[in-house]
Amino acid sequence: MYGALDIGGTKIAGAVVDAEGRILVRAERPTPARGSADAVLAAVTSVLDDLSAHGAWRSVSCLGVGSAGPVDTVAGTVSPVNIPAWRDFPLVAAVASHPGLPAAVQPVLTGDAVAMTAAEHWKGAARGAANALCMVVSTGVGGGLVLDGRLHPGITGNAGHIGHISVDLDGEPCPCGSRGCVELLASGTAIARRALAAGWRPPSGAAPTAASVAASARGGDGIALAVFDRAAQALAAGIAATASLVELDVVVIGGGVAQAGDVLFTPLRRHLTTYAALSFTRGLKVGPSALAGDAGLIGAAAAAASARTDAPDAGRPLGALHPTTA
Amino acid sequence: MYGALDIGGTKIAGAVVDAEGRILVRAERPTPARGSADAVLAAVTSVLDDLSAHGAWRSVSCLGVGSAGPVDTVAGTVSPVNIPAWRDFPLVAAVASHPGLPAAVQPVLTGDAVAMTAAEHWKGAARGAANALCMVVSTGVGGGLVLDGRLHPGITGNAGHIGHISVDLDGEPCPCGSRGCVELLASGTAIARRALAAGWRPPSGAAPTAASVAASARGGDGIALAVFDRAAQALAAGIAATASLVELDVVVIGGGVAQAGDVLFTPLRRHLTTYAALSFTRGLKVGPSALAGDAGLIGAAAAAASARTDAPDAGRPLGALHPTTA
Repeated sequence: MYGALDIGGTKIAGAVVDAEGRILVRAERPTPARGSADAVLAAVTSVLDDLSAHGAWRSVSCLGVGSAGPVDTVAGTVSPVNIPAWRDFPLVAAVASHPGLPAAVQPVLTGDAVAMTAAEHWKGAARGAANALCMVVSTGVGGGLVLDGRLHPGITGNAGHIGHISVDLDGEPCPCGSRGCVELLASGTAIARRALAAGWRPPSGAAPTAASVAASARGGDGIALAVFDRAAQALAAGIAATASLVELDVVVIGGGVAQAGDVLFTPLRRHLTTYAALSFTRGLKVGPSALAGDAGLIGAAAAAASARTDAPDAGRPLGALHPTTA
Repeated sequence: MYGALDIGGTKIAGAVVDAEGRILVRAERPTPARGSADAVLAAVTSVLDDLSAHGAWRSVSCLGVGSAGPVDTVAGTVSPVNIPAWRDFPLVAAVASHPGLPAAVQPVLTGDAVAMTAAEHWKGAARGAANALCMVVSTGVGGGLVLDGRLHPGITGNAGHIGHISVDLDGEPCPCGSRGCVELLASGTAIARRALAAGWRPPSGAAPTAASVAASARGGDGIALAVFDRAAQALAAGIAATASLVELDVVVIGGGVAQAGDVLFTPLRRHLTTYAALSFTRGLKVGPSALAGDAGLIGAAAAAASARTDAPDAGRPLGALHPTTA
């Protein structure tokens, strides 16, 4: 059994996950994202209180803590962009001090996109891939890497940060300090903003979101189509860069913007024929994620299990430990 | 003892390298780059003939074959851009059939930039780094990665291909099929071409090379300075992308353009403060390579030694096998 926490800007979820990746117990609280550091921590504590009231909790052998980033897995701290009161917040120490934690269980911190990658590699669309990039395209653009069959979280847990690579070195300044980042063209936020700036308006009654832009694009709206095409071009350039740098077998895209389906994937595959033109990047497989909203919890558990250095299988991906036939 | 071959567009070099990375025996032939496939192979055979005439050759336990790329280490073939007669040329099989090869020694193919990376990690400027990008900036722009203390050649031996990542998605078309590749702004070829196109002329008697542009830049020539600044900007965007994707400790730059020294490194470090602005990419160390022209040979040997799967130290970097105090 694995314990899991998934801490995001909207909700804080917790679960007990079994060795097959099934969620047996769950708990959830809304994130008081504009509250004090203590208020956010109190929500985490409540989730842990709920979990530890269940019998299954006593069988938990490790606890994965997935969090919105940036994270610092060396320091055990998090600075989620959407939780302003948490800056270099010592999340690992705070979770470790919860009285309900089974003896000898240490929390293992993972960035949320790296956790999603672990989940897709264990139970989802990247299963069996030796080298994979898994992305979350929603409010922002995040990602994680599997290299040589293992999760590659990087030194501080932030590897796979494809949203903030520059594909347009003279482009628009990014809040991160760089210019022309993938996220400025391809995130859901960017898609809605760019469509509105170009004169698109949501159908009456609908909110001006990337989902509404996708609906307009499916209806043939020229502005909406152009904005999705540009987002796909930026994603293609970023994905191709990643494939050139590490060699990839498969790319998996999840998050709200991936729900646009063909509106995103058709131009994305077309642009990849331009940007991924080297002998070893051509023909890269790109598809949607296979897991629904539970990827964060399942992945936090998978990443924690694969990070255990006391196990004979240390560093191996969970998929290799628990092969499934599903 | 390690055997090594280094096959480039200008020369084919061979060596016997000892466990400390010293070259004990060497042989060399010019590359008949415009000749037939057989003519190029004959030059390789001559080098192997020379090497196998030495007593040290009989102590060779592995043979590294570094080659200009693209390579395909799975198929054992090479397609060096500058040797047109070799396309998917079965170099590994050809070398393996040389009668002078010691029994049980199989050639291990490595791309030249990955070999240079292995050399810098073993004996050069990336020594001791767990995560490094080593680059060759000369006629083209190549690179290789060390991740988690090990060489990461990628599935087919082409990982680290930073020259062909796009940092300008609307930029100039590249012969590779993509647009706005780092190489189009930062290679020696590009620096000379762009300087000439902007009106720069070499000092009388000098050839119109990147080295001449660097000399003009040191003398204060505005065009030459602007061209180097732009090259540095493209390198910074590419290096920052790599650091965001895999997390790096150190970046090493070799090749002719790196000889420009401060003319390159000063603007490069300045542009990195823009493009590498994330908490985990800030403060990245960037410096020149520490090895001279023998990096290709030393690295081919190092990569072959680290690739041996029959050894208890399989997959470990050579530096970890043979720690040095130098």
